[in-house]
Amino acid sequence: MSDNKTIMDYETVMLDEENKAVVIIDQTKLPCTTEIISLTTAQEIWDAIYLLKVRGAPAIGVSAAFGIYVLADRIETDDYDTFLAEFRKYKEYLDSSRPTAVNLSWALKRMEKVVTDHADCGVAQIKELLKQESIEIKEEDIRVCRAIGEYGLELVKPGDGILTHCNAGQLAACKYGTATAPIYLGHEKGYHFRVFADETRPLLQGARLTAYELHSAGVDVTVICDNMSAMVMKNGWVNAVFVGCDRVAANGDAANKIGTSVVATVAKRYGVPFYVCAPTSTIDMVTPTGDDIHIEQRPAHEVTEMWYKERMAPEGVKVFNPAFDVTDNELITGIVTEFGVARAPYTESLKEIFRRKEEAK
Amino acid sequence: MSDNKTIMDYETVMLDEENKAVVIIDQTKLPCTTEIISLTTAQEIWDAIYLLKVRGAPAIGVSAAFGIYVLADRIETDDYDTFLAEFRKYKEYLDSSRPTAVNLSWALKRMEKVVTDHADCGVAQIKELLKQESIEIKEEDIRVCRAIGEYGLELVKPGDGILTHCNAGQLAACKYGTATAPIYLGHEKGYHFRVFADETRPLLQGARLTAYELHSAGVDVTVICDNMSAMVMKNGWVNAVFVGCDRVAANGDAANKIGTSVVATVAKRYGVPFYVCAPTSTIDMVTPTGDDIHIEQRPAHEVTEMWYKERMAPEGVKVFNPAFDVTDNELITGIVTEFGVARAPYTESLKEIFRRKEEAK
Repeated sequence: MSDNKTIMDYETVMLDEENKAVVIIDQTKLPCTTEIISLTTAQEIWDAIYLLKVRGAPAIGVSAAFGIYVLADRIETDDYDTFLAEFRKYKEYLDSSRPTAVNLSWALKRMEKVVTDHADCGVAQIKELLKQESIEIKEEDIRVCRAIGEYGLELVKPGDGILTHCNAGQLAACKYGTATAPIYLGHEKGYHFRVFADETRPLLQGARLTAYELHSAGVDVTVICDNMSAMVMKNGWVNAVFVGCDRVAANGDAANKIGTSVVATVAKRYGVPFYVCAPTSTIDMVTPTGDDIHIEQRPAHEVTEMWYKERMAPEGVKVFNPAFDVTDNELITGIVTEFGVARAPYTESLKEIFRRKEEAK
Repeated sequence: MSDNKTIMDYETVMLDEENKAVVIIDQTKLPCTTEIISLTTAQEIWDAIYLLKVRGAPAIGVSAAFGIYVLADRIETDDYDTFLAEFRKYKEYLDSSRPTAVNLSWALKRMEKVVTDHADCGVAQIKELLKQESIEIKEEDIRVCRAIGEYGLELVKPGDGILTHCNAGQLAACKYGTATAPIYLGHEKGYHFRVFADETRPLLQGARLTAYELHSAGVDVTVICDNMSAMVMKNGWVNAVFVGCDRVAANGDAANKIGTSVVATVAKRYGVPFYVCAPTSTIDMVTPTGDDIHIEQRPAHEVTEMWYKERMAPEGVKVFNPAFDVTDNELITGIVTEFGVARAPYTESLKEIFRRKEEAK
């Protein structure tokens, strides 16, 4: 990248229409190196998702949409059935890159529907429609994040201290992010927030990614270790907490990166409002409570070794390494969605959010 | 060290009477290598303390006592005044290795008093008395830790889950440690505790040292990141928290490694008793509350770099890196001392502890 550009001059995932390529920031190189890479082959796109060069559920969905368009555009046939068969091979291949990320298969299915809904239009027009759909998937993501940012911004005021955990930022979406959306929108308006980024052990998404993108955008950001939240709140430096989420249950219990519930508990003690930023796509009305959310266990070496170079705990010691935890709804001040802010009792307010979503269609 | 020996076959600081040396475990090499080193020169002893090869206030105090004895023993004179002058040079030099560690200057002053109290006894006898005093300082430390362990053990039962933060273990004292004393004494009795060791960012004393010494002693220990405490407590795996402390104020507020107050807040939410293990030497009755305790700020690179090899946060980002935090007395279930367990209201109960200490003299 050019020396004068910062990450904010780029979007996390871009479509290079001229060269038919998916363009991403290689997140495995952050924060040391900002490397923009072009992906053109199926293998390159698959690797980028599998190796976490692009991560964050919305960003993965958009990458897959652009990816399948780029690959479909290169299928050399005018025969619909041949085209569909080739398209499905690519779709299944990309879908295998991270089987658990719901946005990946959601985006690919949506792209496939464009093909099957327009069987009579001819391959050339289908390719054009695929491009439009992939661009629309990205624009929707940006609109949703922006709406969350606008609702979130009403919950804070200029000069406020804001604490966030993990990375629910632009790097996890396409622009604005979810938890960072109020921060970016406020920054544009000259709100001068003071942001505290939990480093977020074990994989340090807060220190490596959130601090990187906010710092690069000129936001006043301070990295703290996860265990320093009580001190910054006791010092009166935090007016609100914004976090993202991986899944919200129907009663408002929210699964998010491990440690989120610790932040929520500490925030409650110090009277700091705690907001979960959640696109409606992450609200799961068929999961009754957080107890019904399965928590992924991750490998011990993430805790005991730092990028496999320096051992941090003795050989053979047991490690407990859950990727997520559930924050009980009673600790959540509000759930910020693109259709407004839900508040307790969540069983009712989340239904109201979905009623608004239906009306907006 | 011999292949068949574990750390528990050694004490953290030992006096090699035959070779006139201070023998320590080099803690900077842990957990990868258990290296026992002999210190004989003033420079070696100073370096060992300054470079954190030996750390933990009680262990530093004992190292200084053994160190000043070893150096004094080598002063070649029969003239008391010459001896005293040389002794004081060594004392001042060692005292400069870590000026803020109270046990360091306390131990050196106590050793100096042996010299000045026995000006008429002759240098040879003073050297013998110095040896006895240094051994007594260590034995006192062990007796205090053992008493804390016995009182602490009454607060738990066989099979209990115990969570600890940072290292207030044998490696910070000479034997038993403070927070780990109930664990070791219970382990000797076959209590089969399940211990959770917070890794303790940024310097990872929990993962590197506590997990190391407990694992090496055969205790069932599991390393967790600091942000996982809520999950293990919500799962019902923790029956008590034991932590050490750096200073306890007269009202029971306790300064300890950063993150301790987060653990206390989470423990309160899940109804888990939270105990501070505190030798009376760390209880400061002239400091009224935790607000009066100065909190040391440490360098940013401890958070942003891992042993200076791999950068973990962007260049130029701000970092807040307090070494300690204060746990409010209302979050503390009990303060375990060598004279019994103090409970709220601490302003009264801590005075009672000191009455017992006076009586024991």
